[in-house]
Amino acid sequence: MTTFLGLGEMGRALATVGGAATVWNRTPKAFPGAAVAATVEEAVAGTGLIVACLFDLTSVHDVLDPVVDGLDGRTLLNLTTTTPRESRDLAAWAAGHGVTYLDGAIMAVPEMIGGPGSAVLYSGDAAAFEAHRPLLDRWGTATFLGTDAGAAALYDMAMLTGMYTMFAGFLHGAAMVAADGGSVTGFAAMQAPFLAAMTNGLAGFASTVDTRDYGGPGQQSLAFTDTALAALLAASAEQGVDPRVLTPVRELVRRQIDAGFGAQGTARIFEELSGGNR
Amino acid sequence: MTTFLGLGEMGRALATVGGAATVWNRTPKAFPGAAVAATVEEAVAGTGLIVACLFDLTSVHDVLDPVVDGLDGRTLLNLTTTTPRESRDLAAWAAGHGVTYLDGAIMAVPEMIGGPGSAVLYSGDAAAFEAHRPLLDRWGTATFLGTDAGAAALYDMAMLTGMYTMFAGFLHGAAMVAADGGSVTGFAAMQAPFLAAMTNGLAGFASTVDTRDYGGPGQQSLAFTDTALAALLAASAEQGVDPRVLTPVRELVRRQIDAGFGAQGTARIFEELSGGNR
Repeated sequence: MTTFLGLGEMGRALATVGGAATVWNRTPKAFPGAAVAATVEEAVAGTGLIVACLFDLTSVHDVLDPVVDGLDGRTLLNLTTTTPRESRDLAAWAAGHGVTYLDGAIMAVPEMIGGPGSAVLYSGDAAAFEAHRPLLDRWGTATFLGTDAGAAALYDMAMLTGMYTMFAGFLHGAAMVAADGGSVTGFAAMQAPFLAAMTNGLAGFASTVDTRDYGGPGQQSLAFTDTALAALLAASAEQGVDPRVLTPVRELVRRQIDAGFGAQGTARIFEELSGGNR
Repeated sequence: MTTFLGLGEMGRALATVGGAATVWNRTPKAFPGAAVAATVEEAVAGTGLIVACLFDLTSVHDVLDPVVDGLDGRTLLNLTTTTPRESRDLAAWAAGHGVTYLDGAIMAVPEMIGGPGSAVLYSGDAAAFEAHRPLLDRWGTATFLGTDAGAAALYDMAMLTGMYTMFAGFLHGAAMVAADGGSVTGFAAMQAPFLAAMTNGLAGFASTVDTRDYGGPGQQSLAFTDTALAALLAASAEQGVDPRVLTPVRELVRRQIDAGFGAQGTARIFEELSGGNR
């Protein structure tokens, strides 16, 4: 008898596919097949899993703080977008009130929930993950990343960083092509399979970074990459395209070259991004 | 009887797979099965195709200017990395000396030449492209982009922009994960298929940009993307990761929101990158 808190686009998709028994939304919304609770107290009055898909961390506290003293022994699955630290803070807050906490990060848009390609990352309480697998499997591929409640948010956000920078890089290239009157659709038809093929190179970068073997064989040197990026920036200027997405990539490369690593592999910009972080 | 000028790593791969008859390099290098010319004059003394794979535009002029008056009626295939404008300038320079010009941009690393996944873009003289297809097909998938000699370089560089920004975004995410001691190899195993799947979204962005239908249905709004990017930047700060790759992406989004387009689709950052270019 699962309760769903939050009926935004994503919350509604989760509740629909998940077979909600009780739903609650700040502004009450009709929901066929489920009891629409008028208050949060009423929504969480049962004994089942509580699924929260709200706007942000503040909304989670706004909604649950007034009722949390009554939730001892219950399980909260939080699918609200939070940073890793916020997820850990929520896990500690839940533990302090006797609430079992499972965090989830959704790698899909609402229309994808329950369909092919939908994936959700989880972290926090392992037993809660196992106990609710039948529900989680209905939404999409469910992956448990460990008992650190922040892990799901961390991997989600690390992956989305790659996605948004890829999108921005694509639109930069599209602007270069469009400046000469080229079709962006035609460009995308070439770019999409090329980028998909280039994702095969990420495992090599990863292995280099994990072993810090930046001097090993078969790597494209920072010096070579710098020359290539200089050409891309020159071509971007010719086409009148704002270089702000590409300029920082060359900056990272230049800083590592200036530090004396020009002959080493391009994956070394990881060290620049990490900033002596590890 | 093809002549190859330039035996760097890429030139050597092209000459090997292409079955060079004559080769020349600034510093003479042995090349089994071909005549090694001591001078450029000697290298271009025949009647066949001349393939140049040199360091940059300046090297092309340094090598060919002294002999160009004797090249009337010959065909030059230039595979040296040049910007679109440089390729067009070379085409005009060649035409001025009675030389047929074909420009090529190689979408592969040297080890890939002649193998699966190797692709080369061409533009310039269409008849030269057709006449030399047997050679071009040996190197990899050959695509002719039109008679604008700059087109191959333009599409190449537009696609490489997407690749390098994707790589930088991946390494940013890797730094986020590694800050907590996570394996970058494990992260890449999740990130690579996710990014490959996300390339399916590029066609939608492209269609939106081509039609300028930023208000159409089914698009992720700039306002939503801004909230997501704010969370990614907060998480990056938590992990101690240099935000310089991600910050400009949010800047592009913010500028379009400030211009009043927050409810429109995220592909609208194309307009920001283009800067009223079209």
